[in-house]
Amino acid sequence: MAMVCLSDFEAYARKYLPKIAWDYFAAGADDCTTRDENILAYKRIRFRPRMLRDVSVMDIRTKILGSEISFPVGIAPTGFHQLAWPDGEKSTARAARAMNTCYIASTYSTCTLEEISAAAPGGLRWFQLYIHRNRAASQQLVLRAEALGFQGLVLTADLPYTGKRRDDVRNGFRLPPHMKVKNLEGAFEVCKMSPSFHSLHWQYGLPPNSLDPSVTWNDIYWLQSLTRLPIIIKGILTREDAELAVRHGVQGIIVSNHGGRQLDEGPAAIDALVEVVEAVQGRVEVYVDGGIRKGSDVLKALALGAKCVFIGRPAIWGLAYKGEEGLQDVLRILQDEFRLSMALAG
Amino acid sequence: MAMVCLSDFEAYARKYLPKIAWDYFAAGADDCTTRDENILAYKRIRFRPRMLRDVSVMDIRTKILGSEISFPVGIAPTGFHQLAWPDGEKSTARAARAMNTCYIASTYSTCTLEEISAAAPGGLRWFQLYIHRNRAASQQLVLRAEALGFQGLVLTADLPYTGKRRDDVRNGFRLPPHMKVKNLEGAFEVCKMSPSFHSLHWQYGLPPNSLDPSVTWNDIYWLQSLTRLPIIIKGILTREDAELAVRHGVQGIIVSNHGGRQLDEGPAAIDALVEVVEAVQGRVEVYVDGGIRKGSDVLKALALGAKCVFIGRPAIWGLAYKGEEGLQDVLRILQDEFRLSMALAG
Amino acid sequence: MAMVCLSDFEAYARKYLPKIAWDYFAAGADDCTTRDENILAYKRIRFRPRMLRDVSVMDIRTKILGSEISFPVGIAPTGFHQLAWPDGEKSTARAARAMNTCYIASTYSTCTLEEISAAAPGGLRWFQLYIHRNRAASQQLVLRAEALGFQGLVLTADLPYTGKRRDDVRNGFRLPPHMKVKNLEGAFEVCKMSPSFHSLHWQYGLPPNSLDPSVTWNDIYWLQSLTRLPIIIKGILTREDAELAVRHGVQGIIVSNHGGRQLDEGPAAIDALVEVVEAVQGRVEVYVDGGIRKGSDVLKALALGAKCVFIGRPAIWGLAYKGEEGLQDVLRILQDEFRLSMALAG
Amino acid sequence: MAMVCLSDFEAYARKYLPKIAWDYFAAGADDCTTRDENILAYKRIRFRPRMLRDVSVMDIRTKILGSEISFPVGIAPTGFHQLAWPDGEKSTARAARAMNTCYIASTYSTCTLEEISAAAPGGLRWFQLYIHRNRAASQQLVLRAEALGFQGLVLTADLPYTGKRRDDVRNGFRLPPHMKVKNLEGAFEVCKMSPSFHSLHWQYGLPPNSLDPSVTWNDIYWLQSLTRLPIIIKGILTREDAELAVRHGVQGIIVSNHGGRQLDEGPAAIDALVEVVEAVQGRVEVYVDGGIRKGSDVLKALALGAKCVFIGRPAIWGLAYKGEEGLQDVLRILQDEFRLSMALAG
Repeated sequence: MAMVCLSDFEAYARKYLPKIAWDYFAAGADDCTTRDENILAYKRIRFRPRMLRDVSVMDIRTKILGSEISFPVGIAPTGFHQLAWPDGEKSTARAARAMNTCYIASTYSTCTLEEISAAAPGGLRWFQLYIHRNRAASQQLVLRAEALGFQGLVLTADLPYTGKRRDDVRNGFRLPPHMKVKNLEGAFEVCKMSPSFHSLHWQYGLPPNSLDPSVTWNDIYWLQSLTRLPIIIKGILTREDAELAVRHGVQGIIVSNHGGRQLDEGPAAIDALVEVVEAVQGRVEVYVDGGIRKGSDVLKALALGAKCVFIGRPAIWGLAYKGEEGLQDVLRILQDEFRLSMALAG
Repeated sequence: MAMVCLSDFEAYARKYLPKIAWDYFAAGADDCTTRDENILAYKRIRFRPRMLRDVSVMDIRTKILGSEISFPVGIAPTGFHQLAWPDGEKSTARAARAMNTCYIASTYSTCTLEEISAAAPGGLRWFQLYIHRNRAASQQLVLRAEALGFQGLVLTADLPYTGKRRDDVRNGFRLPPHMKVKNLEGAFEVCKMSPSFHSLHWQYGLPPNSLDPSVTWNDIYWLQSLTRLPIIIKGILTREDAELAVRHGVQGIIVSNHGGRQLDEGPAAIDALVEVVEAVQGRVEVYVDGGIRKGSDVLKALALGAKCVFIGRPAIWGLAYKGEEGLQDVLRILQDEFRLSMALAG
Repeated sequence: MAMVCLSDFEAYARKYLPKIAWDYFAAGADDCTTRDENILAYKRIRFRPRMLRDVSVMDIRTKILGSEISFPVGIAPTGFHQLAWPDGEKSTARAARAMNTCYIASTYSTCTLEEISAAAPGGLRWFQLYIHRNRAASQQLVLRAEALGFQGLVLTADLPYTGKRRDDVRNGFRLPPHMKVKNLEGAFEVCKMSPSFHSLHWQYGLPPNSLDPSVTWNDIYWLQSLTRLPIIIKGILTREDAELAVRHGVQGIIVSNHGGRQLDEGPAAIDALVEVVEAVQGRVEVYVDGGIRKGSDVLKALALGAKCVFIGRPAIWGLAYKGEEGLQDVLRILQDEFRLSMALAG
Repeated sequence: MAMVCLSDFEAYARKYLPKIAWDYFAAGADDCTTRDENILAYKRIRFRPRMLRDVSVMDIRTKILGSEISFPVGIAPTGFHQLAWPDGEKSTARAARAMNTCYIASTYSTCTLEEISAAAPGGLRWFQLYIHRNRAASQQLVLRAEALGFQGLVLTADLPYTGKRRDDVRNGFRLPPHMKVKNLEGAFEVCKMSPSFHSLHWQYGLPPNSLDPSVTWNDIYWLQSLTRLPIIIKGILTREDAELAVRHGVQGIIVSNHGGRQLDEGPAAIDALVEVVEAVQGRVEVYVDGGIRKGSDVLKALALGAKCVFIGRPAIWGLAYKGEEGLQDVLRILQDEFRLSMALAG
């Protein structure tokens, strides 16, 4: 089977991953409308290609928050990489470093931050944070990440509670016994997801109610008091929130609807990007994730003002295919397609 | 089989109800365009979700015509609940009371108003009225409802004749011999539906021509002379009729196309809501029914100006699943989803 | 099998007619886009239903060119009714008279005008004319129609050549040996349709090149010199042509795209109606055919300015079902549905 | 099997061509969105047909760059005709001459320009050019074409690199051993396409990197210095590039997205035509290719300002059906349909 485009990796993962793991990664909230819109919205955007320009030499490198990456595609934070490949986030870190791009490690990793750092020393990494009711646990994570050389702190803003992903409820999703939310080990007990509909709370791999739903913009200041790392806020979808983010002193914004896994029937990520870029007026860097499936999608996002995009599910498919090597394949295809799109669009 | 969302209850009902009963509840007029539009129209409405707001405490209670309900979802009037569950409307009344919400009992109940009241004393209930040619029979119903403690009178305005529901004609729909339109027993004879197309009149469970097609706005005054109950008019779809309703002194309006069972190819309920809310300018309360399938639909309706929504078919599916308990499950899912949507939308 | 709506008759005809006959009646030009658009365009039009109006008495009679018909639905001209039912156009004439409506007999009838007249004396009938190169033959037809009491002359304007109906070419469509274009018997020889694509001309049942492609607006004057019958022009789709029609002294316009059988990818009939009605400003009567499948379609056409609609394929389906009786069933269903729509729309 | 419309030839080719050849001709870039849009965009354009015009005599001849052709449909440049029919481009040339139209021979022909010329002396032919890094080879081609009596030079502007056609990569597409890119024989080695995704370059039948991606508008001047042939630029999709083309002294523009084989998700060819025609204001002739499937598509393109259209894949299907004879069938059908559309549109 030739792996020609990202859909080939998706097909592979759907075929070979255990159903419960596939369903977890594929899940969108409710009717999955927003998950699918993320992709359809890219298709609605059309190029106006220009001809007869010298495209013999193209430089696709970029910088995010001052660090150079080989091309404007990084790895978005997603949980539980061991569900896709035994080495889990260690493979992800190695692939990202090999391709010289940025990897945002999730709080919900199945490897510790220390293991991730040790697996690929010197790689560019940011750390993604959820704020828990147990603030001390969250603070500890931030300090560990900074100490380990992570170069950015990504605060996820769209998950005061976990979205309703029907298949996970049906499957009674839980981590297999040999996997753990290692970064928070000891802080909480890993719990089984109940298939009940009597509760709002389907937190994954952590006890119900461990996340803090009372987080507000003021907590940005709290984070700034803990660390000198630049803070990137993830999950912004409106100009109003983009303005608030800038005013609270973040260094970057990731426009995101969490892959359509939180509130269903909000805007597609690429559609929200336009509004956010307009509001921000270049004061901070703006990125986007959700729906990137081809190199030309990357070009569209950049043309609409993103400094860089991040891929979530496609990274998982790459891991599921061949671990570190598979993820590199995915990134290399995107890189080739991105360069070709640039050339053909003039 | 895990019951995770309302579609699961729909699938259950489709599978286990007798075809003739399923068809009756599922039916829309003609091509069922409006029935399906009710749902599609909700999907077209998109949220603009806001982040980092304190959503740790949310109050989802509301008041309709002065009575508090636990969340803004009531039970719309639908006929013949015994077709879905042996205890019929008695189960419906019990479930509504258990969930502390409002139940609108239909003229076309298979239990009497007295049985319904006795089944769940103290519950908040409104009574839905059709006006018959036999005005004395209609008057009697109003007086009985008031005497039994019903707290609102819902006049259905969109049924001068019954819509053409093709499957009911094909099935030769009629109530099984052991069920009756009990509230009107004696007033008319229960009749078989003829599969003929020679007549306009397919009244369900009552003789052809029993409904009065000459009802006009002036009959609101007649009802006001009969009862002190607040009058809610159901079936309004235009600003012009909303204005007339307010001028004739009703206390509430239910924007509704009768679940798409009357005139096909009119507006979706949620689309008509916007127009009505704008016309009414807060002078009376406005509700909507038709197409609610998720908690986020409730949030959309409220965001567009509804004080409360009512569910029709989903209530039937709940009954078909497990009677009173099944309907509570349906309401509880909607409640959880509604609360989660509020949190995620900020 | 209950015949509840027009689609039931369509399904019956599809099942029981010989394929070559079904294909002939169902055919649209090229990709059949316009044929299907005729129907889809009705679905896009939405009612704004009004409530609480006295609809106990409704008068659905109307007058076309001074003659009263029982409701605003007539029979459009279509060819070769013997392909659908042995008695052919004689049955059509009887059904139209029984329902007290207007039947437009086609030049391409398989019964003579005399047979049609004799079958249903006293019925309201118009005669549809194509102009042939053999002008004498066309003149004779006009004189015969007038002498036989036909009360209108319908000139088809959209067929200088016959549209390309692929299935007819594939089937090598020709009339069975025992059927003839009787009105023109002797004037031409009935010929086989060649499955060749080398020629523009697939005239049905008549020799290639028998139709006159040089007909212009001036030929309206020629017709007026032949007969005192009112002239109705059929096939107008633009305001410019509507204006020309009025200026040339026609009494009526049938907005029509020939059931999508001539130029593919022009406007849907009901969409063109609006433009024509606006241009005509009431100076002549405007009718429409193409896409009527429900009583509510009739109501929409009237609401948009048509005085009456004509049905083509549904009449054939009725004939195919039970001849005269089947066509009456079709008309009666439309009548009931039309009346019900009026009541429900207020 | 009757060959009634172009889709019949498509079905034939799909069935009888080897999969690898079918896939090559059918391929679009990436998701094939633009390939399919080329066709859908024609369907969205609607006629406003006029009636009662004398259409007994119609002249469908036209002139392109001063040469008369029998109707405004020529043969677009496509590669490797021997994959469709043993005689390859020789058959194409003969069919074009027989139908008295223009054939644009591709650089990527499997016959030499000399063979093509000898096969159909006197036919109207243009030569399509890619500019290679080996400029001498390209120059030689231009000189040969001019010497052989080709009457126009078509510069393809949209292929600095070859688009990503997934099926070709999957199939490891390469020419069979007995076929060659004969016009460039000796200049390069024919190479196997690698199914790898590590490279941008999938040049067909020629070594990677043989095309020159540094070509700019100034190279138009270089071509003008080599030849007196009129230069037609192919692949323009924007008003800006149309303006540049006129300023650089080309004689014609072919609006084209290379059949959707280069940059995916740019505009449909017929949509871009409008913009280009407006910009050009009649200063040079404008043609279009991509998506022509019916005679009425030709009429639409002409109505929107094209002087002539060119067909790509349909020509291949004709060849695959019966070589020269099959291609004539395709052209004859288009001609008949075009004439009929003109008549029916008035």
